[in-house]
Amino acid sequence: MACENALQQLLARSICFSANRLRDAMEYGLLNGGKRLRGSLVLAAARMVTGDTVDNNQALRTAAAIECLHAYSLIHDDLPAMDNANTRRGKPSCHKVFGEATAILAGDALQTMAFDILADSKTHDDATIRVQLIGQLAKSSGLEGMAGGQMLDLEAEGRSFGLVETKEMQMMKTGALITCAVLSGGIVAGANSSLLSAQASFAKNLGLAFQIADDLLDYKGDATLLGKPAGQDALRGKAGFVALMGHQGAAVEAKRLIDDANMILEPWKRSAEYMQSLAKFAIIRKT
Amino acid sequence: MACENALQQLLARSICFSANRLRDAMEYGLLNGGKRLRGSLVLAAARMVTGDTVDNNQALRTAAAIECLHAYSLIHDDLPAMDNANTRRGKPSCHKVFGEATAILAGDALQTMAFDILADSKTHDDATIRVQLIGQLAKSSGLEGMAGGQMLDLEAEGRSFGLVETKEMQMMKTGALITCAVLSGGIVAGANSSLLSAQASFAKNLGLAFQIADDLLDYKGDATLLGKPAGQDALRGKAGFVALMGHQGAAVEAKRLIDDANMILEPWKRSAEYMQSLAKFAIIRKT
Repeated sequence: MACENALQQLLARSICFSANRLRDAMEYGLLNGGKRLRGSLVLAAARMVTGDTVDNNQALRTAAAIECLHAYSLIHDDLPAMDNANTRRGKPSCHKVFGEATAILAGDALQTMAFDILADSKTHDDATIRVQLIGQLAKSSGLEGMAGGQMLDLEAEGRSFGLVETKEMQMMKTGALITCAVLSGGIVAGANSSLLSAQASFAKNLGLAFQIADDLLDYKGDATLLGKPAGQDALRGKAGFVALMGHQGAAVEAKRLIDDANMILEPWKRSAEYMQSLAKFAIIRKT
Repeated sequence: MACENALQQLLARSICFSANRLRDAMEYGLLNGGKRLRGSLVLAAARMVTGDTVDNNQALRTAAAIECLHAYSLIHDDLPAMDNANTRRGKPSCHKVFGEATAILAGDALQTMAFDILADSKTHDDATIRVQLIGQLAKSSGLEGMAGGQMLDLEAEGRSFGLVETKEMQMMKTGALITCAVLSGGIVAGANSSLLSAQASFAKNLGLAFQIADDLLDYKGDATLLGKPAGQDALRGKAGFVALMGHQGAAVEAKRLIDDANMILEPWKRSAEYMQSLAKFAIIRKT
């Protein structure tokens, strides 16, 4: 896949002759058979502007940056002090292979790499576009986005979050980066404001539906397919969407959100097909 | 101090109503009485261009971003899996107060905040300057800079690094961010290429001297002043500069490096006074 190749090339270019162990751990966390949903969303959003199916280097680099950011978050989430997950996508998690210290550093350096990729003129020749991508990625992944959401998620263990709080927390933890992926694809490809606005509404629905699907997978999921133990939410006393809405209610809500999301893109129907298929995939996936 | 106020204001502006625990941990790691050497270097480098002693908002924001990056690295370095340091500047380290999970997230979010600050148009109205600052900070703190150097430093425990390897490792671990601080101050204030080139040479010497001074403090240091246990290098079997050069040799070398550094700035003598005083401070400091 194009996104996969872009990531491989970027890490190869970053070869540092001395800190090879760190580079290996970054590669392990980055190239481990993920779904690349976020990277694909960048490409799909860009294709809504460029209209073709050949992804240009600018969109690919933007996709790679967001996948680096996502990979960092997974490595750190798996750490013993966080979710203490021994496996990820059916393989030992990064700290199980490289040790905790190296895994912490690998996550750190992958975050840095995401911003490094976006700051490079190869990502876009217009610096105003690059700082827009960087600012957006920072806002969606920091205190008020992903990291803040992860903090709330950790605090949610054993506390009783209601539906409103759970939605807010998940929009920060997962939704913000998914929205960032969609908007980044639009921005790097030069989308006009009406398309960007539609993409933002689409992404908000998608982000929530994605997390509901995640909770459903955790509830009824197959550990072999998931590549990690299922039923973790209940075990930790976390009030996920399944506990709050019932598993049928959650499934209905996820489908409604995706139907609404895809309806928002109907005016761009001709070029939105790939994007709409990704939205459908987000709630029927098995992993 | 101006840099301290800028940091306080930036965190206040970042208030997120929900993830307050994370915000508190970031503030604890960021506003804990550090020397602000890196932030001061940014301001001193900018003053070499602007010539006055009143620091403008652009230089202050740049200084704040580099201090956020530095604070993140200290929080993560102190973690049990890394240096396992219980104290920092005489106070319990971040994970001792907030727990490991929150400390990991606080470091993560402080790194993000650094890039967020630099991407904002308040830092400079010219986007090409902002991406230059961002790219430079990313390169000096990622795989080929600070994080890579920290990896090599961890690997050095129990291995015998020679002087060449130790210098290379320290230039990545500490020197790269110090150089970045000096150059960022020059860049944000609009330094010409001959000044930037002199600042780069100055910073390279300063970075190495700073680390030699660090090793000397660890060797003969006073734990009460340091705010952390002294003699850690010998304990961990790390070959620091003191072990490699003797403590007198190390002191002579640090002084020579700073004398050379300050000589490089002589052509800018009128505006370099603050910068030259920081260089001297770097090797006579007690903490």
